[in-house]
Amino acid sequence: MHLPSQTRLRVRYAETDQMGVVYYANYFVWFEIGRVEFFRQLGWDYKQMEIADDCHLPVVEASCRYRAPARYDDEVIIETTVTALRASLIKFGYRLLRLSSDGNQLLAEAETVHVSVDKQMQKKRLPEKYQQAIRSTMS
Amino acid sequence: MHLPSQTRLRVRYAETDQMGVVYYANYFVWFEIGRVEFFRQLGWDYKQMEIADDCHLPVVEASCRYRAPARYDDEVIIETTVTALRASLIKFGYRLLRLSSDGNQLLAEAETVHVSVDKQMQKKRLPEKYQQAIRSTMS
Amino acid sequence: MHLPSQTRLRVRYAETDQMGVVYYANYFVWFEIGRVEFFRQLGWDYKQMEIADDCHLPVVEASCRYRAPARYDDEVIIETTVTALRASLIKFGYRLLRLSSDGNQLLAEAETVHVSVDKQMQKKRLPEKYQQAIRSTMS
Amino acid sequence: MHLPSQTRLRVRYAETDQMGVVYYANYFVWFEIGRVEFFRQLGWDYKQMEIADDCHLPVVEASCRYRAPARYDDEVIIETTVTALRASLIKFGYRLLRLSSDGNQLLAEAETVHVSVDKQMQKKRLPEKYQQAIRSTMS
Repeated sequence: MHLPSQTRLRVRYAETDQMGVVYYANYFVWFEIGRVEFFRQLGWDYKQMEIADDCHLPVVEASCRYRAPARYDDEVIIETTVTALRASLIKFGYRLLRLSSDGNQLLAEAETVHVSVDKQMQKKRLPEKYQQAIRSTMS
Repeated sequence: MHLPSQTRLRVRYAETDQMGVVYYANYFVWFEIGRVEFFRQLGWDYKQMEIADDCHLPVVEASCRYRAPARYDDEVIIETTVTALRASLIKFGYRLLRLSSDGNQLLAEAETVHVSVDKQMQKKRLPEKYQQAIRSTMS
Repeated sequence: MHLPSQTRLRVRYAETDQMGVVYYANYFVWFEIGRVEFFRQLGWDYKQMEIADDCHLPVVEASCRYRAPARYDDEVIIETTVTALRASLIKFGYRLLRLSSDGNQLLAEAETVHVSVDKQMQKKRLPEKYQQAIRSTMS
Repeated sequence: MHLPSQTRLRVRYAETDQMGVVYYANYFVWFEIGRVEFFRQLGWDYKQMEIADDCHLPVVEASCRYRAPARYDDEVIIETTVTALRASLIKFGYRLLRLSSDGNQLLAEAETVHVSVDKQMQKKRLPEKYQQAIRSTMS
C-alpha cells in the first residue's frame, strides 16, 4: 500500500449548509470513508470484518481542526494513516485536501480513536492478521 | 388520539443547504418522525414493535410535493394520518406546516407506503392489535 | 452523451440505519448526484449555472419506488434522464442499480420535478443553451 | 439563564447506523442544537445574529469523547456552556446525557471552538452585547 492511503470524493449539494460551505459534521462522514479505504487498500473489506470476524470499531474519540472551508463540487482527497495501535485500540490520522491544479490546499486535519468490540459491544483484541498488516504501515 | 397526529420540530442548521433552505431529502426524515409520533399517540412505541413483535415497516414508496421552502430555525408542524391499510401494507399521508402567529403556512404534502416485514425482510401481516387501532383512526 | 447518464457510488456506513440497509431519505441525496452528473456529462457545471446564470433548480416534486434494499459498501449505479422539459420546468427520471458481476439489480426508480428560479426564488425561464442541449438528449 | 443551558431531543431513526446506535458524526449536529439553544436562552436568535449583525461562527476545532452509545428513540439532554471567550473566538463545552428515571447516563463530552467572521469569512470581533452576556454566564 502506498502511504498514506488516499481516497477522493466530490462534495455533494446535500453536504453544504446555508453558509455556502460544507457543514462541519459531514467531515466525520468523510473520515469514515478514509478508514474504509485504508482497510480496502490493505486487502480487507470492513464489511467482512464485521460479519466474518465479529469485529467492529466504534469511535471513542474524534477531533478535527478546520483550516479552510470545503465547498460544493470541490474534489477533495482524504489521506488516512494509522498513528497508534494497541491490542484493542486503533488511532487514525487524517488530512483533507482540496484538489487543485496549482497545488492542493489543506482543508482539515483530524484524528479518531477506535476500540475493537464484538456485536455485544464487548471489547475484544483486534485479530492478529489485522494487527500485523496495520503495523506494517507504521514505520 | 386527536387527528391528525401532530408533532413539532425546529429546523436545524445542518438541515439547510447553500440555497439557504432545507435540503429536500431532509423532509423525508421529518415524515419518519411524524410516523413514529403517530404510533406513540396511539400508545405504541415503534422501537418495541421492532423488538417485541419483530415487525418492521420499510418504505416501498415515498413522494412529496414541495409548496414553500422551510428555513433555518422555523418551527414546523408535521400532521400525520393513515390513509390506507391492508393486511401487510400501510399508507401514511403528511402535511408539513410552518408555524406562524398569523396563520400556519403549508410547506409540503407527502405520502409514504410501507410493508410489514420481519427481521429477514419477509412480508408478514401487521399484527391485529395494530390493525384495529389504526383502523379506528380512519373514519 | 451516452444515455442515460450514469454515475457510480459506494454506499457509506453513515447512510445505513439500524435495519442494516440504506435509510430511505438518502436515496434522494443520490438522485441529486445523478442530476449533477447529467449536467456535467452535457458539459456544464451546476455550480456555474448557479453563479454565472443565477439559475437554481429547486425540487417541487419528488417520488421514489423502492424495489430492493441497498446495503453498506454496495456499489450502485444511478441512471439519470430528462423525461420532460418546459420553459421553466424540468423532470428527471432515475433508475438505481446495484452493480453485480452476475447482472445488475434494480434497487429503485424515481422522479423529481424542478422549477427554474433565480436567487430570490422567482421563477425564470431555463436559459436557451440548457433548453437546447437537454432537448437533444430526449429522443 | 440557568446554567448550563439545557436542551432535549429524541433520537431519530435516520440518526442510527447498522451497528444499531447513533452514527458518530450526528453528535456534532446535536451540539450545534445545543449552541443555538444556549444563545436562545440568553435572549438571542442565532438566525438574527447572522442577518442583523453579519456575525457567523464557523467551527475551527471540534472534538468529542464517546462514553456510551445513544440509541433510537432515546431522550437525550445536551448541556452547553461557554468555557472560553476572546475577542473573536468562543469555545463551547458540551455534555450529552441519556434521560432515565433511575439517573441520567453520560453519553459524551465535547468541545467546539468558533471564530467570529462576516459573510466573506473575514474575522471580526464578536459584538460587545454578545461578549458581555456570554461573559456573565462564565463565573
